[in-house]
Formats: sequence, structure tokens, C-alpha cells
Amino acid sequence: MDPSDLAWILAAFALVSLMFPGLSLLYGGMLGGQHVLNTFMMVMSSLGIISLVYIIYGHGLVLGNSIGGWGIIGNPLEYFGFRNIMEDDGTGDLMWAGFYILFAAISLALVSSGAAGRMRFGAWLVFGVLWFTFVYAPLAHWVFAIDDPESGYVGGWMKNVLEFHDFAGGTAVHMNAGASGLALAIVLGRRHSMAVRPHNLPLILIGAGLIVAGWFGFNGGTAGGANFLASYVVVTSLIAAAGGMMGFMLVERVFSGKPTFFGSATGTIAGLVAITPAADAVSPLGAFAVGALGAVVSFWAISWKKGHRVDDSFDVFAVHGMAGIAGALFVMLFGDPLAPAGVSGVFFGGELSLLWREPLAIIVTLTYAFGVTWLIATILNKFMTLRITSEAEYEGIDRAEHAESAYHLNSNGIGMATRTNFGPEIPEETVPDAVQVGVDKQKIADTRKASK
Amino acid sequence: MDPSDLAWILAAFALVSLMFPGLSLLYGGMLGGQHVLNTFMMVMSSLGIISLVYIIYGHGLVLGNSIGGWGIIGNPLEYFGFRNIMEDDGTGDLMWAGFYILFAAISLALVSSGAAGRMRFGAWLVFGVLWFTFVYAPLAHWVFAIDDPESGYVGGWMKNVLEFHDFAGGTAVHMNAGASGLALAIVLGRRHSMAVRPHNLPLILIGAGLIVAGWFGFNGGTAGGANFLASYVVVTSLIAAAGGMMGFMLVERVFSGKPTFFGSATGTIAGLVAITPAADAVSPLGAFAVGALGAVVSFWAISWKKGHRVDDSFDVFAVHGMAGIAGALFVMLFGDPLAPAGVSGVFFGGELSLLWREPLAIIVTLTYAFGVTWLIATILNKFMTLRITSEAEYEGIDRAEHAESAYHLNSNGIGMATRTNFGPEIPEETVPDAVQVGVDKQKIADTRKASK
Amino acid sequence: MDPSDLAWILAAFALVSLMFPGLSLLYGGMLGGQHVLNTFMMVMSSLGIISLVYIIYGHGLVLGNSIGGWGIIGNPLEYFGFRNIMEDDGTGDLMWAGFYILFAAISLALVSSGAAGRMRFGAWLVFGVLWFTFVYAPLAHWVFAIDDPESGYVGGWMKNVLEFHDFAGGTAVHMNAGASGLALAIVLGRRHSMAVRPHNLPLILIGAGLIVAGWFGFNGGTAGGANFLASYVVVTSLIAAAGGMMGFMLVERVFSGKPTFFGSATGTIAGLVAITPAADAVSPLGAFAVGALGAVVSFWAISWKKGHRVDDSFDVFAVHGMAGIAGALFVMLFGDPLAPAGVSGVFFGGELSLLWREPLAIIVTLTYAFGVTWLIATILNKFMTLRITSEAEYEGIDRAEHAESAYHLNSNGIGMATRTNFGPEIPEETVPDAVQVGVDKQKIADTRKASK
Repeated sequence: MDPSDLAWILAAFALVSLMFPGLSLLYGGMLGGQHVLNTFMMVMSSLGIISLVYIIYGHGLVLGNSIGGWGIIGNPLEYFGFRNIMEDDGTGDLMWAGFYILFAAISLALVSSGAAGRMRFGAWLVFGVLWFTFVYAPLAHWVFAIDDPESGYVGGWMKNVLEFHDFAGGTAVHMNAGASGLALAIVLGRRHSMAVRPHNLPLILIGAGLIVAGWFGFNGGTAGGANFLASYVVVTSLIAAAGGMMGFMLVERVFSGKPTFFGSATGTIAGLVAITPAADAVSPLGAFAVGALGAVVSFWAISWKKGHRVDDSFDVFAVHGMAGIAGALFVMLFGDPLAPAGVSGVFFGGELSLLWREPLAIIVTLTYAFGVTWLIATILNKFMTLRITSEAEYEGIDRAEHAESAYHLNSNGIGMATRTNFGPEIPEETVPDAVQVGVDKQKIADTRKASK
Repeated sequence: MDPSDLAWILAAFALVSLMFPGLSLLYGGMLGGQHVLNTFMMVMSSLGIISLVYIIYGHGLVLGNSIGGWGIIGNPLEYFGFRNIMEDDGTGDLMWAGFYILFAAISLALVSSGAAGRMRFGAWLVFGVLWFTFVYAPLAHWVFAIDDPESGYVGGWMKNVLEFHDFAGGTAVHMNAGASGLALAIVLGRRHSMAVRPHNLPLILIGAGLIVAGWFGFNGGTAGGANFLASYVVVTSLIAAAGGMMGFMLVERVFSGKPTFFGSATGTIAGLVAITPAADAVSPLGAFAVGALGAVVSFWAISWKKGHRVDDSFDVFAVHGMAGIAGALFVMLFGDPLAPAGVSGVFFGGELSLLWREPLAIIVTLTYAFGVTWLIATILNKFMTLRITSEAEYEGIDRAEHAESAYHLNSNGIGMATRTNFGPEIPEETVPDAVQVGVDKQKIADTRKASK
Repeated sequence: MDPSDLAWILAAFALVSLMFPGLSLLYGGMLGGQHVLNTFMMVMSSLGIISLVYIIYGHGLVLGNSIGGWGIIGNPLEYFGFRNIMEDDGTGDLMWAGFYILFAAISLALVSSGAAGRMRFGAWLVFGVLWFTFVYAPLAHWVFAIDDPESGYVGGWMKNVLEFHDFAGGTAVHMNAGASGLALAIVLGRRHSMAVRPHNLPLILIGAGLIVAGWFGFNGGTAGGANFLASYVVVTSLIAAAGGMMGFMLVERVFSGKPTFFGSATGTIAGLVAITPAADAVSPLGAFAVGALGAVVSFWAISWKKGHRVDDSFDVFAVHGMAGIAGALFVMLFGDPLAPAGVSGVFFGGELSLLWREPLAIIVTLTYAFGVTWLIATILNKFMTLRITSEAEYEGIDRAEHAESAYHLNSNGIGMATRTNFGPEIPEETVPDAVQVGVDKQKIADTRKASK
């Protein structure tokens, strides 16, 4: 691996790492103040748990030689402990393996959208390992492992047979997470239905800002190094983010009167999702259109969902699933032959076979992800309770599952900072006025009575 | 473009992108809690709207061949849709064009300082496009487009005729934004005059932190690649930020008793502004002095402004305009011939012509930016109302213009997260205790009565 | 210096700069709402003050030729004003000097753990300069300055004599800061002992997220360029962070019932500290174990401290001191010869001399740092009062030392944003309802009476 390529990939790796706090904040800010920390924990623990399984058997599943040459799944033992890539052989394999950890972990983190505020934390960790193993790893193998006839290496069937275009993981990451989040949300059922507004929108701004910077690392890193392709995709990513932001504002203005900040942040992410499969295949102006289209499709999907009350809390299906599909279909129709990928969309005289190859890849991805995730969650629910009690949900999952609250803003702040939940207990009465944010037991009781 | 240079520019690009959430937070934190989201929206929409106009005609205006060879403005059609730079010709032109989008957008974002809490959002977008076209683009052309006699390319008049020193956009970005923000503030008039304290200083810390990191990308990227110059300017930028921080603390300590956190953040930004034109032209110790001087000048300008009640809400004129001027004048006097730029200040035996060339560039920039911005805002005000109603201002612009509030900290946080303003409405009464931050209608009525 | 190496180091430099806002937020979020800004100020002023002394005499002390060839301290005049490294000689010395500023400043920032909420700000600045000069600089010289017999350059005694393994500053940065923070905490005495809970955990998430990204720059930059070693250490750092997070969760689950978010953040940092000396010397799976071990040791140390009521407020000794020791000892025992450092731990057939060389380096570091810091603080206390008054502490150090409060969330936010503490005063009564967070004088009076 060329040192100048490595210089960029190292930076891209650090940028992608910012997506984890970014996603934590984006999602945590969207909920009420009693569910924030659990959201943080689901996102961050995705990184914690995936790092371990990935170095044990995950990288083998994803990029190992296909078992039996069937293109279904890689050999889980091939990269055990990364021992065969921990010495310098000039390939950069270890760097890429590190990058792949982040890809897998962020995909799992997105799926938490289907579990917000109501899943036992232990169950989330178990689910995470199973989901990675049976959903993410096969899909990633199908899409990321490319045949190499010379060395006899056999990769995944989907990429190699279908030859569809997907620049940086629109299928294995975004559509996968979207469909999986939806399946998990359906198995878990929806939260007790009292509408809340996002408790802290500045967190959403910070989160979205870190995610955008991380995306430049994600898409730019996928280019493989410091080359023209990398510069092309970071520019189209920027433009698509802008397109998503403006597109969402516009449809909000038209259909509900005011452009909101929350909407513009949602649109920005949707624009980035939409460009992910298409970043190397559309023109700069096309990138703006892709972003705007992704945002419009997300807006429509969110509005549609609202009527149906499926509790995909952070709208991963609408924002990642649907916008990902929009981006892939856009390439199929409007791929610009001048862009680095050289894919001609159907309207630019491209092969008509694109009209079934792209949709087939999308349908297979969605069906597999939704089906297997549903199966995992349903079976797991037989062996361990996935959902917290209603009591705990009303109190707030942060206190129930983590014995802490996100804010103690009214505390005088005098005295010693204390980690809340280990070592000798601090008697509650010594905490002078640690008024818990929003925990008003009487009001909760009243509300519950009223909602019956 | 060399791959190792590109590796750094890619990273610098991502770093500069952090300035947008950074500036949103810095500015949002400075206002009261009812004006936060609108501030975010003005900053982020600068990126959204500029991205589009820049790829259509903006890059042509800035870097296109000067129309008629007059050095006034570039050819707007030259880079339409970036189509002539979307293929790899080894120049890195597309990467730079992406970088320039960020420069233009951050300049517009700074101008929002003159519009805080009182400008209709739609009017802001229209103003933004006009301001970019008639203020930023010409100034950027004058300063960034350098003649190339060999290829027959003609750039802007100011840089090529005056040959003043400005490393990374002290004129076209900072002085320009400062003067423009002041002009906009004057046209809009000041907010209803009730003093508020910044509602959330941790947002200011986060914002300033992201801005500092972004500045390393901004100045370091301007060096053109991974070269000695880049390392020189990131080091002088760090030192100037430190100088600004300590300088502001010192004057606060002397003139008002206590060094404040808000002051130290302000000083840090002022230090970075001051070093922007000077980063390659002063010694490391000189960089500390530049930063400190920038902070002192800002402190003085803010104090002066306070007596005059011009509502340049985020002090862009004091912090960006005045500190930018201080940095440019410092080079004129104390430029160190050992520094990479090799500019000898007057005190180091430099040419006396610097004594009129630098000031002239400054005066032209300030006059043009102030005058044309004033004209645009004044004319625009005839065709569309720029300002929100008094009613809306008292209620808070977030609710009036975006139908949302930044915080719902008292909400129990039970139930489904909802995007506030589209799809089927959520009846207000189903939101159990979404106590709006600070909206106390009785108190507002009382206050208004009292202020009459 | 190779351009591709420089490309990475420039990015790493910007990443490390994120550790300063990161640490500010991590620490600020841990305290009550009345002590936040002072915490920010201590961390950020570390960067401000160190930048100045470092360019004057600091770099000479650390990397200058050892005075008298004794290996005790470098020549303070050698790098005065960085004048001998401000011209391009192809070595990258200026870039590294900039990097070293950040190392020194972050070390001082960590020491603020011993001063939280009770140290006069002016005294902190004086202490900071003395601590850098007499504690950090010698230790850094002993560890970072490596003999070069060819050029006749003599470095520090410890590294060159003991030849212990420490990849990226486990001794000079983390153990040093841990022991120094503890000493400062003892001299200052503990805060008036009323337990408070961390006032704002989302700040902790943001802080930890920025710190993690910064650490990739810190460890990855220490590799010296864009090489295999850099990719190795960023990957082991990621894995160790994950190990720390999961390890802390596990011991919390076992010993106190619930895994908390605050605990997982603490564990993440502890994991990163533990890998810092070991990042190039353990296998990927070993990195997970190092991180988990660091977290467990930190958990144990925090619990132990709780019984003893030493007010090391941010647990720098537990998290940086102890986890740093754990990492160094892990290398001694389990260093993997396949890893880039090629250090064989004792269990992998390594030299038995490691069994005294590593511990000796640790003991010398801890003893020196603790002893001299204690001495500095004690002597300084004779000449100037280190501690704020009890009155000020009860009111909150932010108001007492900086005349401002972190939040004014109940303010209506109407009118002009004002910098609080300079220029014409704003009469308190014109601020309509700027309810100060938690300042309830009656309650404070009651609490004080009760605590007597």
C-alpha cells in the first residue's frame, strides 16, 4: 500500500470513528430525556462488541475465501485474531480490516433504531452478535468480496454474479440496516404511545455534523487511497448532503408550512445515504439531485410511517433504507458516463440489463435482511425477554437499565463528582437537589390512567 | 496533483467541514434558548444553498477567466456543473473547487451575525444567493484569481495589481464577512433590546473546539499540499489561537476583573482570524503576538460596540473584521523574512510601499463589502419583508419560523420520537409536559408593557 | 520528512487538537453545573499557557542536548522561539515541535483533575508553568530524548539507560499526570463533601468521542508517518478502546448490578490509556485484553478511592495512572514478538530483565511526578492562596472566578446577546428571568448549616 494512500486512509479511519459519537447524539437527541443514555450505549456498544467478534471470526466471514466456493459465506477461521495480517506485507490488509470493523459496527448501530427506549441492554448485546453473524456478515461477503480468478479466491455471489453498481455500501450497510431496523421494531412492538418531542436539538446538530465529517472518511476511504476517485466522491458527497438538506426543507415548506431544523438534519443524512451507492457514478449536479431525491423519498416514507405507527424510532428504514434505494435506482437511470465509475444510466444509453440487476440486488438485500433479522429477534425472544417492563419504560430506560440519568441540571454541583453506580452507594438524601429531569411519578400515573 | 498532497487536502477538506457545526454551536450558544435553531439553520443553509449556486455559476465567477480581461469578475459559465473538471486531468481542480465551496459557504455563514433572531428564513436564503453573487464572488475573484501570463489567464485586479500579502483569505473571507455582517445588522435594525446571557456555554466550547480543528484544515489546506508551508502554518495557527486566548483573558482581567470562559473562546477565534492573513509571514513568537493583538483589538471593538448598540449579534465585525485587519497590518509592520512567505515587514527593513498596499486592500475590501451588502439588503427589503414580526420575535424565532424549540428537557420522554412538523399533526395535549424552555406568555406581555 | 508522512502527521495534529475540547467536555460534564466553565478554562488554558512557554524554553528542556551530558534536562535556550527550526531543512522538526506542544499541554490539562472546582484560576496558571518546567519537561526529556552517538547528541537518562518499552508516552504523559493530579488533590484538600451526580452526561459522550478520535492522532502520529506501524497502532487502539468499554461494563454488571454509560465512557478512556505504551507491542487480541485490563484496574482504583475520599475529581490517577501502569506491565508479560515492536514478553520467552526495567521506569516516574508536584503546590501555597474561599465554592467556582454561569436555559432569549463581563455592565434586573442554574441561596445556607 502506497504511503500517500495510507496517509489518507489513516485520516479517513479517524473520521469514520466520529460517526459513533455522531450517531449517538443524533439518535439520543431525538428521544425524550429519559432514554438518552441507553441510546448512547446501544450505539457505542456496537463498536465494543463488534470489535471483538470481528477480530475473532468476523473478518473471515466477510472477506475470507468462500466456503465451498459457493459465494455464500467466507471462512470464519481465515483471519482469526488478525494473526495472518499483523505483520507488514505491504498490502495494507490490517488497515482495511480496521476500516471494516467500523463499517460493521456502524451498521449494527443503525439497527438500534428499531429498539429505542424499550430493549433490555443485555438482550441488545446478544442480538448484536447474532445479527452481525447471520445478517451483516453474509451480506457484506456477497457485496464486498470480489472474485480474484488469478489467486483462486472466490468472493460473494451477489457482486460477482449481478455486477450491480454500489460504490460504498448502499446495500450491505444502509438498505440492510434499514430493513433490519424495521424487522426488529416489529418484533419488539412499539413503545407506549405518547408522543414526545426530541428533547435536545443541539445534540442533533452536533451529531449530524460529526456524521457528515465521518462520511467524507467513509466514502473517501472507500476510494482506496489519495486518488482522483477519493476527491471526486468527497465532493459529490458534500453536494448531495447539501441537496438533501435543501430538498427536505423544500418539501417541508410545501407540505407542512415551515422548514424545520430537525427536518434539514434528516435531509442531510438522507442525502448522504443516497449518494453512498452513487458517489462515483453521477455528475456534480446529479449529486445534488440524488441528495434531494433521497431527502424527498425519506420525507415521504416518514410521513407514511407516521400513519402506520410502526415504531422505527429513528426512521432508519425511511432515511437509510429508502434513500439508499433511491440512490441505487438513480444510478441505474441517470448514471453519468463521464463520472469515474463510467456507468451509463439507462437514460444515458446504458445497458437495459441495469433495469433488473440493480432492483434484484436491492430486493435480495431487503428481503434477506428483513427476514433473517425478524427470525433472529423472534427466536431470541423465546429464550430471553427482549423488552423491558412497562414500569421501566414509563420510568425511563436510562434509570431502569443503567441506573443513571442524562441530566442533573438543577444540582448545585457542590462537592465531589461521583460515578453513580459502583463503589459504596451515595445515599440519595446526601444529593441535595438532584432533581431528576422530568421524573414526576404522579404525572406518570395520571397519564397512564388517562391513556387507558 | 501529487498523491501525498491530495492525502492532506482530503483530510483538510473534512476538517473544514467541521467549521459548519462548529459555527452553528458557537453562535447558537451565544443567544437565548428561543433563537438557537434558526441560528443553526442560517449557518447550515449557507452550505446548502452555496453548494448549488457554486457548481452552477459560482466557481466561474470566482476563478473563471476575467470577463473582458478587466479583473472584475470571472466568466460565470466557465465551470458550469463542474463538467470541465469532473474528469481526472491530474490537476486536482475538482478537489480545489470543493474546497472553495466551503470557503464561500463559511463566509456567508459568518454574515448571519447581522441577522440573528430577527430575519425571515426565506429572506435569508434569497439574501444569501445575492450576497454570494454580488459581494463574495467579486471579492474572491479579486483576491484568489492570480494572473497566469503563460496561459493567457487573467485573474482579479486587486491581488495582481496591489500584490498585498494575505495568506488564507483574511480579506475575502474575514474582513468581508465582518463588514457585510455590520451592514446587514444596520439595515435590519436591532432586536428588541432586552439583554440576555448566552443560554448554553458548553455549546460554545464544542463550537470553538470544532472551529479550531477546522482552521488547521483551512489554513493548512491553503498551503496547497503536504509541504513545509502547511506544517508551518498549522503551528503558527495553533500558537496564535493560544495567543488570542491568553490575550483576551489578560485584557478581561485588567479591564473588567475576571477572565471569562466566553471571553477566552472569543479570543481564541480572534487569534485565529488574525493569523489567517499572516500565518506564513510571521515567526512562531510573532504568531503569539498576532493572536494576542487580534484578541485585544476584538475586545476593544466589542466594548466600543456595546456603547453604540449596533446589533451585530455575534460580533463578526469585531472578531473577524477587526482581528483580520490587525493580522494584515501586523504583517506589514513585523513580517519576518525568515518565515516561508519571506515578507519583510517595515520594521524588518521591508519595502515602504507595504504601508499603502496593505491598507488599500483592506479599505477597498471593507468599503465594497459594506456598501454592496447594505445596498442588497435595502433593496431586498423593498420587495420582501426581511424581518419577522415583533410578536414572533418575542415568542422566539425558532417557533415562529421553524415551528420547533431547541429543548424539551422536562418532557418525560416516553413514547415515540416525532419529527415535529410534518405528517399528521400531534395534538399538543398528547404531549404530556412538554414545557417549552422559557416561553412564559404572561411574562412576555408584562415585559413588553414595561418596555413601552 | 517524506510528504506522505507529513500528510498524515498534519491530520494527526488536527485530530490531537480535538482532545482539548474533548477533555474539557468529559471533565466538565462530570461535575455539577456550577463548576463547568472553570473546568473548561483549566483545560483550555493549559494549551494557551504551554504554547507560549514551549516555544520560549520548553522545547529546549525536552529535546535540547542534555546539559552537561548528564541526561537530566535539555538546554532551555536551544530552541528559543523555534528560530532554529522555522526554516525548511527537510527534517520536519517544526511539525514535531508543534506536536510536542500538544503532548505537553494535554498532560497539564489532565492534572486539573486534582484541582476541580476549588483552585483559584490565577494560581492554576502559575502552577501550570511551574509544573511544566519542573515535572513534565524533565520527565519528557528522560523518556523522549534518545541518544544519538553519531551527532554527539545526548538525550535523557531513563530511556537510554533502562531501555524500557513505552510506545507513545505512557510514562511521561499518563502516569505522570496521574501521580501529579493525585499530589495536587492532596495539597488542595477535598471539596466540601456533598456528593453530586455528573450534571450533563451527553457532554461526556461528546468529550469521549472527540478524545477517541484524537487518540488515533496521538498514537498514530507517534508512529512518525504514514507507515505500517501507524496503521497497526490505530487498529490496536480502536480494539483496546472497545476492550476497555466492554471490560468496564462487565465489572460494573458483576459488582454493582448495571452497566452504566458513564462507566463505559470511563472504560473506553482507560482502555486507550492502557494501550498507549503497548500499542506496537501486543497482538490485536492482546490489545482487547490490554484495554479490558486497563478498565478493570481503573474500576478497582476508583472504588478504592471512594472509600478514602481523596478528591482526585476526574480520577486521573485511577484512569490514567493505573491503566497506564497496567499497559506497561502487560507488555512486560505478554508482549508479542510478531507485533511491530518485536518485544517478547516474559511469557513469550522474553528477557527476564524486563521484570525490573519496566517496573523501575514506572516507579521512578510516579515518585518523581508525585514528589515534585507536591513540593511545587505546597511551596506555591505559601506565596499565594491556591484555594478559593468556602463561600465561593458553595456559590460555584464559575461565578466566583469567571463571573459567569454555564447555562441560562430559562432565559427568554429575547434581545441582544451579551458577553457577560466586559464593557458597560448590564443591570441584573434587565435580564428578565435569567434563573441561574441551581443557585438557590437559601438552600445553600440550609445545607451548610446541616453539614456543620
